[in-house]
Amino acid sequence: MPASTRRPVAQLTPAERIEQVFLISQPQLRTTTRGDYYIAAFLSDSTGKLNGRMWQASEAIFNALPEEGFVFVKGRTENYQGALQMVIESLRPVDIREVNLEDFMPITDKDIPAMFSRLREIITEEIKNPHLARLARAFLDEQDLMRLFQQAPAAITLHHAYIGGLLEHTLALLELGRVVLPLYPQLDADLVLTGLFLHDIGKTSELDYDLSFKYSDQGRLIGHLVKATLLIEDKIKKLDESAPEPFPPLLKNCLIHIVLSHHGSREFGCPVLPSTPEAFAVHYLDNLDSKINLTLSEIKKETGNARWTNFINALDSPLFKVRTKK
Amino acid sequence: MPASTRRPVAQLTPAERIEQVFLISQPQLRTTTRGDYYIAAFLSDSTGKLNGRMWQASEAIFNALPEEGFVFVKGRTENYQGALQMVIESLRPVDIREVNLEDFMPITDKDIPAMFSRLREIITEEIKNPHLARLARAFLDEQDLMRLFQQAPAAITLHHAYIGGLLEHTLALLELGRVVLPLYPQLDADLVLTGLFLHDIGKTSELDYDLSFKYSDQGRLIGHLVKATLLIEDKIKKLDESAPEPFPPLLKNCLIHIVLSHHGSREFGCPVLPSTPEAFAVHYLDNLDSKINLTLSEIKKETGNARWTNFINALDSPLFKVRTKK
Amino acid sequence: MPASTRRPVAQLTPAERIEQVFLISQPQLRTTTRGDYYIAAFLSDSTGKLNGRMWQASEAIFNALPEEGFVFVKGRTENYQGALQMVIESLRPVDIREVNLEDFMPITDKDIPAMFSRLREIITEEIKNPHLARLARAFLDEQDLMRLFQQAPAAITLHHAYIGGLLEHTLALLELGRVVLPLYPQLDADLVLTGLFLHDIGKTSELDYDLSFKYSDQGRLIGHLVKATLLIEDKIKKLDESAPEPFPPLLKNCLIHIVLSHHGSREFGCPVLPSTPEAFAVHYLDNLDSKINLTLSEIKKETGNARWTNFINALDSPLFKVRTKK
Amino acid sequence: MPASTRRPVAQLTPAERIEQVFLISQPQLRTTTRGDYYIAAFLSDSTGKLNGRMWQASEAIFNALPEEGFVFVKGRTENYQGALQMVIESLRPVDIREVNLEDFMPITDKDIPAMFSRLREIITEEIKNPHLARLARAFLDEQDLMRLFQQAPAAITLHHAYIGGLLEHTLALLELGRVVLPLYPQLDADLVLTGLFLHDIGKTSELDYDLSFKYSDQGRLIGHLVKATLLIEDKIKKLDESAPEPFPPLLKNCLIHIVLSHHGSREFGCPVLPSTPEAFAVHYLDNLDSKINLTLSEIKKETGNARWTNFINALDSPLFKVRTKK
Amino acid sequence: MPASTRRPVAQLTPAERIEQVFLISQPQLRTTTRGDYYIAAFLSDSTGKLNGRMWQASEAIFNALPEEGFVFVKGRTENYQGALQMVIESLRPVDIREVNLEDFMPITDKDIPAMFSRLREIITEEIKNPHLARLARAFLDEQDLMRLFQQAPAAITLHHAYIGGLLEHTLALLELGRVVLPLYPQLDADLVLTGLFLHDIGKTSELDYDLSFKYSDQGRLIGHLVKATLLIEDKIKKLDESAPEPFPPLLKNCLIHIVLSHHGSREFGCPVLPSTPEAFAVHYLDNLDSKINLTLSEIKKETGNARWTNFINALDSPLFKVRTKK
Amino acid sequence: MPASTRRPVAQLTPAERIEQVFLISQPQLRTTTRGDYYIAAFLSDSTGKLNGRMWQASEAIFNALPEEGFVFVKGRTENYQGALQMVIESLRPVDIREVNLEDFMPITDKDIPAMFSRLREIITEEIKNPHLARLARAFLDEQDLMRLFQQAPAAITLHHAYIGGLLEHTLALLELGRVVLPLYPQLDADLVLTGLFLHDIGKTSELDYDLSFKYSDQGRLIGHLVKATLLIEDKIKKLDESAPEPFPPLLKNCLIHIVLSHHGSREFGCPVLPSTPEAFAVHYLDNLDSKINLTLSEIKKETGNARWTNFINALDSPLFKVRTKK
Repeated sequence: MPASTRRPVAQLTPAERIEQVFLISQPQLRTTTRGDYYIAAFLSDSTGKLNGRMWQASEAIFNALPEEGFVFVKGRTENYQGALQMVIESLRPVDIREVNLEDFMPITDKDIPAMFSRLREIITEEIKNPHLARLARAFLDEQDLMRLFQQAPAAITLHHAYIGGLLEHTLALLELGRVVLPLYPQLDADLVLTGLFLHDIGKTSELDYDLSFKYSDQGRLIGHLVKATLLIEDKIKKLDESAPEPFPPLLKNCLIHIVLSHHGSREFGCPVLPSTPEAFAVHYLDNLDSKINLTLSEIKKETGNARWTNFINALDSPLFKVRTKK
Repeated sequence: MPASTRRPVAQLTPAERIEQVFLISQPQLRTTTRGDYYIAAFLSDSTGKLNGRMWQASEAIFNALPEEGFVFVKGRTENYQGALQMVIESLRPVDIREVNLEDFMPITDKDIPAMFSRLREIITEEIKNPHLARLARAFLDEQDLMRLFQQAPAAITLHHAYIGGLLEHTLALLELGRVVLPLYPQLDADLVLTGLFLHDIGKTSELDYDLSFKYSDQGRLIGHLVKATLLIEDKIKKLDESAPEPFPPLLKNCLIHIVLSHHGSREFGCPVLPSTPEAFAVHYLDNLDSKINLTLSEIKKETGNARWTNFINALDSPLFKVRTKK
Repeated sequence: MPASTRRPVAQLTPAERIEQVFLISQPQLRTTTRGDYYIAAFLSDSTGKLNGRMWQASEAIFNALPEEGFVFVKGRTENYQGALQMVIESLRPVDIREVNLEDFMPITDKDIPAMFSRLREIITEEIKNPHLARLARAFLDEQDLMRLFQQAPAAITLHHAYIGGLLEHTLALLELGRVVLPLYPQLDADLVLTGLFLHDIGKTSELDYDLSFKYSDQGRLIGHLVKATLLIEDKIKKLDESAPEPFPPLLKNCLIHIVLSHHGSREFGCPVLPSTPEAFAVHYLDNLDSKINLTLSEIKKETGNARWTNFINALDSPLFKVRTKK
Repeated sequence: MPASTRRPVAQLTPAERIEQVFLISQPQLRTTTRGDYYIAAFLSDSTGKLNGRMWQASEAIFNALPEEGFVFVKGRTENYQGALQMVIESLRPVDIREVNLEDFMPITDKDIPAMFSRLREIITEEIKNPHLARLARAFLDEQDLMRLFQQAPAAITLHHAYIGGLLEHTLALLELGRVVLPLYPQLDADLVLTGLFLHDIGKTSELDYDLSFKYSDQGRLIGHLVKATLLIEDKIKKLDESAPEPFPPLLKNCLIHIVLSHHGSREFGCPVLPSTPEAFAVHYLDNLDSKINLTLSEIKKETGNARWTNFINALDSPLFKVRTKK
Repeated sequence: MPASTRRPVAQLTPAERIEQVFLISQPQLRTTTRGDYYIAAFLSDSTGKLNGRMWQASEAIFNALPEEGFVFVKGRTENYQGALQMVIESLRPVDIREVNLEDFMPITDKDIPAMFSRLREIITEEIKNPHLARLARAFLDEQDLMRLFQQAPAAITLHHAYIGGLLEHTLALLELGRVVLPLYPQLDADLVLTGLFLHDIGKTSELDYDLSFKYSDQGRLIGHLVKATLLIEDKIKKLDESAPEPFPPLLKNCLIHIVLSHHGSREFGCPVLPSTPEAFAVHYLDNLDSKINLTLSEIKKETGNARWTNFINALDSPLFKVRTKK
Repeated sequence: MPASTRRPVAQLTPAERIEQVFLISQPQLRTTTRGDYYIAAFLSDSTGKLNGRMWQASEAIFNALPEEGFVFVKGRTENYQGALQMVIESLRPVDIREVNLEDFMPITDKDIPAMFSRLREIITEEIKNPHLARLARAFLDEQDLMRLFQQAPAAITLHHAYIGGLLEHTLALLELGRVVLPLYPQLDADLVLTGLFLHDIGKTSELDYDLSFKYSDQGRLIGHLVKATLLIEDKIKKLDESAPEPFPPLLKNCLIHIVLSHHGSREFGCPVLPSTPEAFAVHYLDNLDSKINLTLSEIKKETGNARWTNFINALDSPLFKVRTKK
């Protein structure tokens, strides 16, 4: 994506004219002492947050606002009681697809297009089974989905919790699969690789509706495991309309089984538990990469002198920050 | 279904000619002392079990046999070492749909067509929301599925564990819903009723492949909650092709949420936990009916003098068999 | 109860003379710079809270004060550093029975006498078993207990957490029982109804001593399940002195069993687990009503734009606030 | 108790005339080939078991028999197909109070009257608080209860699982209390000692109805913790009718709290958790004695060469049988 | 230890010259507006805390500071914006062994040398087994370790959480053992006593490195149970070099088993569960003393009028503060 | 090891003279009708089991026998009531080190010396850190330990449960480490590799004493995690006597931490939970290999027609036996 030309919140000064996108949150419709409506809200990007006030407001404008979401704002900055605030002249919601997400959220420090291209390469080279290869390619070719796939974080508060995190994590798993699978020739390597590619694909839908890394309604109502199942089922149905032969039901069920069981336990939301060697392989490879990423990033995050991090719920432990290797 | 004309196993005598369906189980390909193949297996129905022997066997015939399933047998009975056995002349697998299931399994003591007709009546009369009404009707009109729905047990080892049990349990829930929902006018009664109708619809698929109340492969690999989700998703997609307006996504997600969460806890295989009043209503109504059915049937099952049943895992307790009401 | 004539805290202005009941909390005995004792405390009702100061205080007066409880206050309001405070001239604890509780706590929006009268009607009409009918009537006739029963909340922080909540919840269960029990003719309906009526009767004792919905000492030391057991045991003993025949021990034990097991699991404080069909019925009916009430009231409570409530511990989940039915 | 004069089962020979008590179990009403009723059952004592047959039986006789209980049998022994059986001429149920229990169950190897006298001595000497002393004495003076108290086992399958076990365990706890309490002068020693005396008193009721160490109906329906509470509540009510001053409610609640919480966790059936230092003291002293008794007796029980016992559920572990001390 | 001559923080006034040890915490290297480094930190002792500022600071000085630890400070006090702060002229870390710990932490109100002498007396008199006696004596003679043993708290946030707490708790256990063990003659009393003495010896190592009752790195990385095991293993190896006969492996393994299992469950970090009567004895004696100490001290800690303490995680309950005994 | 010359049990015929090692189990000292002692026991190897009788027995001979262990037997076979039994003339216990273990237990189908040589190669080539390299080499050079290391199973009932299983599993982990670690350059690869090598080294000690894959006394009393810790601590102490510089404490503690935490949760016996990235890496790599091995071997083990294995406790699930890849 091109470098952004917007003014970061942290660099704003009083009396600037502004026409750009902000993340709006906690909008409230209030009444002035004279009885007129106005809207109070926060406007933010990844560099900071300021108060916004829109004086000529109406219920209609307010109702169009998301609880939290992107808006294109025209207005000007001013000083109010020592702090900067934005006087909003007009504002309209914008779709997340028109937004430069990295202006608003942490982002991977790796190159997204390069990662995606490497992921495509591994999938293309390594998956031999024609059904799985066709399915994987069909996903790779679905541009809208892949755009979200490249932006989504891998998790909301844990490992890879930044733009591009889902792609980074998925690629890391495919790289792992590439070197680990030759050590276990009895495993169906194609199935494991396809499972690794698609295991978290349901997380893409979470970006469709909501924002700032919260679960979308659908994501919360049905869960991303089931969402991924629906995506795979749908894709296979479409493939079957044109493919030379139908996708084998056994293979489909085993693939969906991997997706539904990859969290490894009911406690973590699996409707079924791993029951094939391939499902166990995906579960432990997923854990291996996400836990190494999580521990390293948590240690890096806390910059103080302390020798231990705070207690980390997802690990059931604090981490020892002193490294034996520099 | 018409009354069966087959000879029940319990009434067989030596030297009868037999041409009818049996449940075959544990088939084994053995070799006679002369080196010829023969097949040994059990043949059974709900009244008993006898040994079967097929002397002119081949690997091809054996490989076509299910580990457990229905076969049409031609043969004759004989006495062998004091016990009755069947000399099989030919046998071929038959589809479960051609089988009179009640010849082989316990069956509800209620009238299946009457129950189904009452269920259709409640659904037709009570569900007002046009989308939900159309969806429910579409399920009611899918004859193959409804045939399985009328035969399936509600559970394999627990409550309503007999042919027609799923229908009986579902109808009981709809009757409950009919009288309980008017007490809670804030609930979306249409959504609750549709949820009650469809919450266990995924269990029908378990009869497709397998038999004698074991989970089918697909049922075990993806779970009946997710199976129901796929059925609903698919049905709505088909409806949307012809319906005057598309099924509202909010309504669809809330309905699927009810299905996916109706076991009430992750421990019992929910990928998501109940998060709407309607989902809680379905969960507790389902529990109310299934636990009352289970306790009453367990007490009835044990006919000895003992004042307490054995420990029942599903209830985490034994039951007190002495009744305050005769 | 008659409309209150007291001045709500929210309407107080400086320089009013006040003679009325307040809820006092966090009283502290302090020393002025001149070495005299004074008492600082909060005075509140359901509309607000203000500081109270009593300048001519003594250890004796202080020691008579509850940590939190009702006091009759004579004093006057004044402005102190921009806030209203009460200068207390005299104060004395008053018994909770002399207090108009709805001045101090949230209260059901239903009519308490009407609910109680309906409850009495259902019990009188529906319970046929003479022992259970006599027992229920004896409870209905115990005026002090029924007064508390009509005031108590059903729970402290969860469902029906307001004055009259226990009555409202109990009545809702009896209404449920009325329509549900005919669907299960094998259940002892009289026993279930009596169990529904008395299952939470132990919660009345919590109001005797303490206040603002905290558990009383006895309630916390022995639990409300055991408290209810003691009340039933005691009532039956008294009935047996005059009744034509003694209360059948089987019936008594099954009734107490329902009370002691109605939370359904050890985790929620049951000394015994449900072991009769009637105990399961009470447990699930109780859950059905309390969870529907809880989910609806939690959704109503949060008035912001957010589509989901906060995480609710008692439900192990947040709730989806968007309703499919208006 | 006087030495028994009955003929132990293990010493019976064919053709003896017998008039004595047996433990009858699993009685069945059967029909002879001629269509007459007869009763088949097992007759046993602590030394063995034999078949019993009553040829002139009726439904009335059969219905009067317990599923398991004591009967006075007149009959004679005979040889039937190589085994001894009893031909029963008449039989009538006898109350457990007329039975020499040690003829039928394992019994403590300590002297029961001596233990009881020592227990009375400790209680009399050590409990100073007049209310608690009066309450303890009232229990000691209730002869029927104390007779059961001296016979009851402390547990059914675990520690002290033999006649006199409850007394032995209770006395051991009082001896522990005697030496431990002086080390903790801040504890209310009188309350702890009374709690230790009465904590398992509810187990006496289990002997009233049933037999061979199974829980009675009441014991299973309400639990022995609540049963003990009812006994204490009842005793205090009776004391209050004659005592110089009423039993202090605080003291009563704290005593009952100890009883109800002494298992230490909800998982083990506590309706309330320990909340006073005295309740913790009773809980841990109880555990200390019962676990030492259990481990020593389990090690003694297994007499083989193995160095470890089998896995013991109550300890979540097997035990190491090799002793560092001979 | 001699009475301290240092100036407690609570008694400091402006413009004092100070040369003494403080506990430093949260040191930060900051930059003045002129670009010079200075160090900001807190200085504290058991009586209070004040800000410290060192104006002539360098990275080298800063890097030598612990995140939290003892430093010898030269400086003077001054008033800054109404609060006292310390202007630090020089500071150097000091070893914990040169520090009068009671100046900085809560300390037992019992006499440490008297307690240690009584502990030595019990061990010397009671342990008869020559191997165990020699081992215990070897620990008693290791001066550095015993110095830490006398200072360490028994736990960080729970029972005996003050200097001398480990000694106080260990002595209490030995006193308990002295009176309890004669009641259980089948136990190996020598093994139990040695186990009681050494069960928490691993906690001494936590004081070596760190401070203010936080776990040291080693303590956290390997746990104090394993640390104690290493200490015992090492001590026995050294004894074996000079002892008349080697320490019996059975005895060693049973002693280490007691140490490793004394928390009683995997949940509390035991690598093995108690499997000998002696291990159970140590586990329950340890619990008895620590829970009585914890409950009494928690009740004493909260001095308000409230009748119940806050919820205490380690007890899974709040405590009832009203005492039946004054 | 050289090919064995012993007569396998399965090939024995009556009237053979035998002088070879057997696994003896369940020896019992019995008395003949004439009052003489004789010993009855089972004698077995990996091919079968037969009864053994020693007629000229004494208590001394019996007491020298293990409950289960290896004995050198002189005797002859005979037919007794249709079954083969061994008449033992003399027998003496033999040390496990003199035994060809593969005669008695399942054994890896890989080449043990080749695996060990490859393991040595990886360790030598990959571990660069001089301290860790020296430590690993010291273990590799300890011949007795390495002999056990090559024979031990990796687990008793689960994955790699055969002779050579520990070596096979450890080597598989090192091969995994070799290819996975380059993907995570921030990890201390040397520490991970050393951790992988030594994580289960404590299991070797289990072979020292006992047999047929049961835990030895020490193994059960202290656990193999702590046993490994003692081995590492001891080895480092010895190295420090001669090494150019002492082993860094940080490195030692982090290595031991990996060993103690590698089961990943308290439930599986960890005294500490993983707290470093390296500890997580070892935990998940260990799981990855052992679970893939376990699932593949369980599927292979069950040879019937069934599509699913039985429920497998260690996996909390049955396995689907149908493979997508042949």
